This record gives sequence, structure tokens and C-alpha cells, in this order.
Amino acid sequence: MQILSNATVAAMGDSSPAAAGGASQGYGLVERAAVAIEDGRIAWVGAEADIPADYAGAARQDLGGRLVTPGLIDCHTHVVFGGDRAREFEMRLEGASYEEIARAGGGILSSVRETRAADEEALLASALRRVDTLLSEGVTTLEIKSGYGLDIDSELKMLRVARRIGEARRVTVKTTWLAAHAVPPEYRDDRQGYIRDVVIAGMERGHAEGLIDAVDGFCEGIAFSREEMAAIFDRAAGLGLPVKLHAEQLSDLGGAAMAARHGALSADHLEHLGQDGVDAMAESGTVAVLLPGAFYTLRETHYPPVQALRDAGVAIALATDCNPGTSPLTSILLTMNMGATLFRMTPAECLAAVTRNAARALRLPDRGRIAPGLRADLAIWDVRHPAELTYRIGFNPLHARVVGGELV
Amino acid sequence: MQILSNATVAAMGDSSPAAAGGASQGYGLVERAAVAIEDGRIAWVGAEADIPADYAGAARQDLGGRLVTPGLIDCHTHVVFGGDRAREFEMRLEGASYEEIARAGGGILSSVRETRAADEEALLASALRRVDTLLSEGVTTLEIKSGYGLDIDSELKMLRVARRIGEARRVTVKTTWLAAHAVPPEYRDDRQGYIRDVVIAGMERGHAEGLIDAVDGFCEGIAFSREEMAAIFDRAAGLGLPVKLHAEQLSDLGGAAMAARHGALSADHLEHLGQDGVDAMAESGTVAVLLPGAFYTLRETHYPPVQALRDAGVAIALATDCNPGTSPLTSILLTMNMGATLFRMTPAECLAAVTRNAARALRLPDRGRIAPGLRADLAIWDVRHPAELTYRIGFNPLHARVVGGELV
Ligand SMILES: [Zn+2]
Ligand SMILES: [Zn+2]
Repeated sequence: MQILSNATVAAMGDSSPAAAGGASQGYGLVERAAVAIEDGRIAWVGAEADIPADYAGAARQDLGGRLVTPGLIDCHTHVVFGGDRAREFEMRLEGASYEEIARAGGGILSSVRETRAADEEALLASALRRVDTLLSEGVTTLEIKSGYGLDIDSELKMLRVARRIGEARRVTVKTTWLAAHAVPPEYRDDRQGYIRDVVIAGMERGHAEGLIDAVDGFCEGIAFSREEMAAIFDRAAGLGLPVKLHAEQLSDLGGAAMAARHGALSADHLEHLGQDGVDAMAESGTVAVLLPGAFYTLRETHYPPVQALRDAGVAIALATDCNPGTSPLTSILLTMNMGATLFRMTPAECLAAVTRNAARALRLPDRGRIAPGLRADLAIWDVRHPAELTYRIGFNPLHARVVGGELV
Repeated sequence: MQILSNATVAAMGDSSPAAAGGASQGYGLVERAAVAIEDGRIAWVGAEADIPADYAGAARQDLGGRLVTPGLIDCHTHVVFGGDRAREFEMRLEGASYEEIARAGGGILSSVRETRAADEEALLASALRRVDTLLSEGVTTLEIKSGYGLDIDSELKMLRVARRIGEARRVTVKTTWLAAHAVPPEYRDDRQGYIRDVVIAGMERGHAEGLIDAVDGFCEGIAFSREEMAAIFDRAAGLGLPVKLHAEQLSDLGGAAMAARHGALSADHLEHLGQDGVDAMAESGTVAVLLPGAFYTLRETHYPPVQALRDAGVAIALATDCNPGTSPLTSILLTMNMGATLFRMTPAECLAAVTRNAARALRLPDRGRIAPGLRADLAIWDVRHPAELTYRIGFNPLHARVVGGELV
């Protein structure tokens, strides 16, 4: 038993709409609080004055009034990839057309080429630099997708690297099979072949190897249709794998509603989500994962329907979408600021979006809140009020992380 | 004599329009380069193969192919202030009206209240947290404005704290007198009295005490008129102090043209700058300091006329505008990304904007480029290409700073 004392705790426990709205509620804030930890779990949380008498002999660590939140959760990343796309970014700003960039080898296929060419060590080393930045901002759980291999071996290589990240660092990694990210050049004229021989066959193999925690796809005019994704999701269901979907980013294809009907954990992006999709997500309990880094990078002007999601009681998460093309973002705190500044979410909603709701998007009921019985994954901050985490831009007030009960 | 070898150098020396545009030019990139440093100055820069024979005995430090740029310069900050405005940010997102926020003690006057109440030690400690974040991203020169005191003692207190930052850290601080930031409540009915008794009298006193390097003002409908600022600038000229102006942020009052006629070092913000202003700035050599953090935070939709500034040959700088109300931003790298993403500046322009052009905005001809005779203020980066500095969002690849020739 260990007690973190003299803390301000944002327990993030209450998900009722009333608590999430107005007057700075929704944090579950406890002042002069303590958190008791035993065997890597939270044993007790409350006001210091109420610490149970039988904890009297426990070791205490005085946090000097610092803020304690659940460890942050980045529930949508593509953090494993080869190369970078800085020169493509530069060429576009210098006025190059998409055709010129494609001719110069740019676009998603350049990431595919570099990811295929890289070995696990190189992918691990480059990903760890990005992951370390996320951890430095209090992240304790991280989702990582495949999707730049687009052949079975390269996709599985990405997921092995993702698993190795979870061994190399004090962070829980959840892996996602995203072979349905794009159709690679060698299957350009045989989409069905790609879906059958790579997306589904690879999913079966990755599942057998224990590499896949969930299945995702990119449902968009330029990628996979709703029907194609539905077929993939049916096979995922057969394997007992939960699903999620990149949906309604550039247009409304009804992807989120289809995903909801498949019991999806989350539908992600959602700039063009309509009321039908909102209603379907509310009914299935599908989390809306908003990705403001991509919105910002693409200079999107069509906003995700935040108010409609709130009104329908859909849980909203935020994630970095860290990827080399449309969101080279490695700051979960900046993601929270963008959620507020761009999407007009309140700071309490932004914090819930990277704790309680992000945990739900990853089907991890053992974390995302500070409550007895949950995993002791915490972030300790040098701030006085939790709104400061969202308010500042490009400032990291992390004091320390607690992962599975250990201060790291 | 010391030689940094095995480097890629972005010398940022060439400011010609041709070099600044197209095809990734404008960095003055030298591969397999070396920089020779003596007595805190750059003695020589060029390809390793060309190192002068008489440097043979000098100590060498192998940079392993890392990128070397001039030390970054943040030429517009309000980094010294009391309190923060996180709760005001939160209240606004929770739907509070401006009147409710004012009743709750929010707005710029809350920063004035907290700044007046804080002693130098408290202001220094809170500012250093922000400054340290900037330094961690390669900043070696920093401008700091007064403007939250609005009485002579409090304004001078801010500038004394600014000077102390330059002593406490390895960074050059340039101070700016910004009493003409807002009219404080006690002068609400006596603007001319405020200008006479505080703005000008305080400027004379601060100048006598050696606390003021330049004079600035906020020229806007809600602040000071062009005529009021012109009168203040005339007094500054009498003291031999250079001037600059917050101009054309919310509307076009002709502030930038007026400032240009006063030989201003820079006109800053400029979202609503017209062609007249562009032309006047081009003629006077006034630098355009763009502040994308405020643009982003205020969700501005009116863009500064970047193409017109380019066409007229006006040098463009970028700065954080770090302040508690409209730009709580402490990342110069994110400022560069915003310059590209929001303002469509090229990565080479963004790097010039925080080196060569920012130096010019502070009248510091001894830095901002890597060339013989200049101060050896450098930043060393773990990147392969300088475009990466602008491309990434919320990622800090700094390896080390060199300040006055010393690795820190
Ligand atoms: Zn994604
Ligand atoms: Zn300013």
C-alpha cells in the first residue's frame, strides 16, 4: 500500500451529461485529496480527511498540491511507419501539384515504400522517438495501427513493432489491423483480391499470432466502400475481434452507421457525420473519436457535429492520429487544445476525451478514471486547475507518470 | 578555436526573393559542413573539404550529420505576467458571455491585477517555466514586452524581470516598453493623462534606467489610435529608441503605414493589412511579424497578406506572441508549423522567419544567420532536412543549443 497525498484529484468518474457540462463540472474534482495504491491498482480515492484508519501505516508521498488525473490515452495513432513526408509537405507549400508530388514519389505510397523497406529495428527506433514524446505528456495507454505495409508480412511487421513498443516502454499498447487503409499498386486492378488475400487472410494470420486487438478500415471514396468494410467486419466478428472505422472524414458515406450496426468500438474523424450516423452511434454505444490534428493539417472547414453528439449522449474521445501524411502530431496536450479551440469542446470534455472516453474506445474498462479497483495509471501535473492542461499551447506541465502503480 | 564538423548547415544567409522561394531553396544548405567558432563568434563556415589548413589543430566536435541552424529568435512575446487565464478560457467554452467573464474578473485586466500584485521573484519564476520551454526548442534570443502593469512601477518591474531572465538563462533578452497596451481602469476617463503620466513618463524613466530596448503599442479601436501612437513614437524617437507596433490585427487603421513612417523595426499581427501598408513597410524596411498563435486562438478567418508582403519584398518574421489571453503558446516550432499550415509559408520561409528576419525585427545584425563574424548562437537538431522543423507538430528534435560559442 502506497498513498499519494496532498493532491488535487480529477477522478473523471462521472459521465452523466449534467456533470460533463457547465460550470467546470465533469472533472470529479477532489481538493486536498489522496489516492491509495495497492498491487498496481487504485485501492481508494477521496479527501485526505477521510483516509481509512487502517491505512495509517502506509507509505505516503506528498504531491505538494499537484493535480492528479488518470493517465492519458491516445486511442488512435499510426505511430509506426518508415520515413517521413517533410519534403512532400514542403513541396506542396512551394506550389507543387498533387501530380508533381506523386511523380516525385510522395503520398501514402511513399510511406508504404519506406515501411516495407525498413526492418523492425529501424521502425522501432523511429517510432520510439514519437512514442517518447507522447509518454512525456502523461500518456500511459496507446493504440497503434498497421496500414503502411499493405502486404501481410509488412502489416504484421508493423504490429510486432507495436507490441515491442509496449515492452520497451512503460505503456500499454493496443494494436489495430488496418490493412484496409489503401489498395497497394500491385492490387490496383484487383481490389477484391487485395481484400481477400491480404486484408482478410492477414487478419486471420495476425489473429492466430496474437498480434491483433481490433480491426479498422478507411471508409472513403478514395479507399474502401461501406460494403467492402462490412464484409471485412463480418470476418472480424467471426474471429471475435472488435471493430472501428475511419468514417465520414471527407464525405458522408454512412460508414459510421454501418460500423455502429457492427457494434464498433469507435467511429473516427466524423467531420461529415450526419444525424443518422449520430443516432446509430448513440444506440450502439460507439465512441466518436475526433482527430483535430488532421482537421488542422488539412485546413478542414467542415466541423464534426459536436453538439449533436453531445445531445445524443455519444461519448467523445480525442486522439493525435499521429501519421506522416495528414497529422504529424505527437502532442496529446495540443490535441486537447485543438479540441477546445477548433471544436469548441470544454476543457473538461477534452480531458474526458483522452481518459474515460478514450478507454471506452479501446474497450479498456479498467482505466481512464480514478476509482477503486481500476489500474493505477496516473499522470501528475504541475498545474493548479485541470483547465490549464487544455488552455496552454505547446507547454508540458507533466511532473510524473504512474504506470501500474509505479512512479516513472 | 573549435570546429563543429560532420554537420548539415542551414546558413540562412541569402535573403534574395529568388533564394527564398521555390525548390527548397532559401536555407543556404551546406552538406558535410563545418562551422569554426572562436571567441564566441563564427570564424568560418563551409564544406568540410574546404576547412582552412591553419585550422588543422583545432578541437573538433563531430555532429554525426545533424542539422545546424542559427539559434532561433522569438521576436514578439509577453512572457512575463502574473496568473493565468485558464478558467476564463474554460468559461468561454462553457458558453459564458464576455460580460459574465468580465464580471468574474476576466480579460486583460485580470492579468494586470495579478501582475501588479506579484513581486519580481514570483513573476520571474512563472516566466522562467515558459522561457525554459522556448529554450528547449532552440531559442537563443527572446524579446519580452511590458504591458500588464499599466502603471510605471509595475511596467518597470516587468522589464526588470525580463532583464533578470537574460541573466538567469543563456539567452539574449531584448526588452520592449508596451505601456500603450490598454488603458487601465483608473485612467478610463483620462486617456491623455495615461499617455502623458504613464506611457511617456514611464518610458523616460525606464530609458534612464537602461530597461528599454524598444517601444511598442497596441493600435486598435479597443486600444490606442494611430494619432496617439504617433505622439508616443515621436517621444521615443527623441530618446533614440526604436519603435514597433501591434497593427491591423482586428481592423485596418493604417497603423503599419504610420509605424513605417516612423522607421519602425516591425509591424506585428497584420491580418487586416492593406496594400498601402505593405508598400509603406517595403519602403521603410519594416519587418512584418506574423503571430499565428493569436490567429489560431481567436479562430481568425482574415489572413495576413503573405503573398503581397512577399511580392513587395517585405521580410516576414514569425513569433509566438506568448501571452495569457490570446496566445498562450510557448512553442516556436509549433509557431513555424502554423506559419506553414495556416499562412501557407514555405518551411524555408518559416525558418528564415525565426532566424534572419526575426533578428532584423530586433535590430540585431550580429545574428540570425551563420556567417563569419556573427555571434555563434546556433541550434543543433536531430533531423536530416530543415523542412522537418516546420513539418512536425508538437515534436522537439533539438539536440543542443550553442550560445555565444558554448554548447549548452
Ligand atoms: Zn487514422
Ligand atoms: Zn503581442
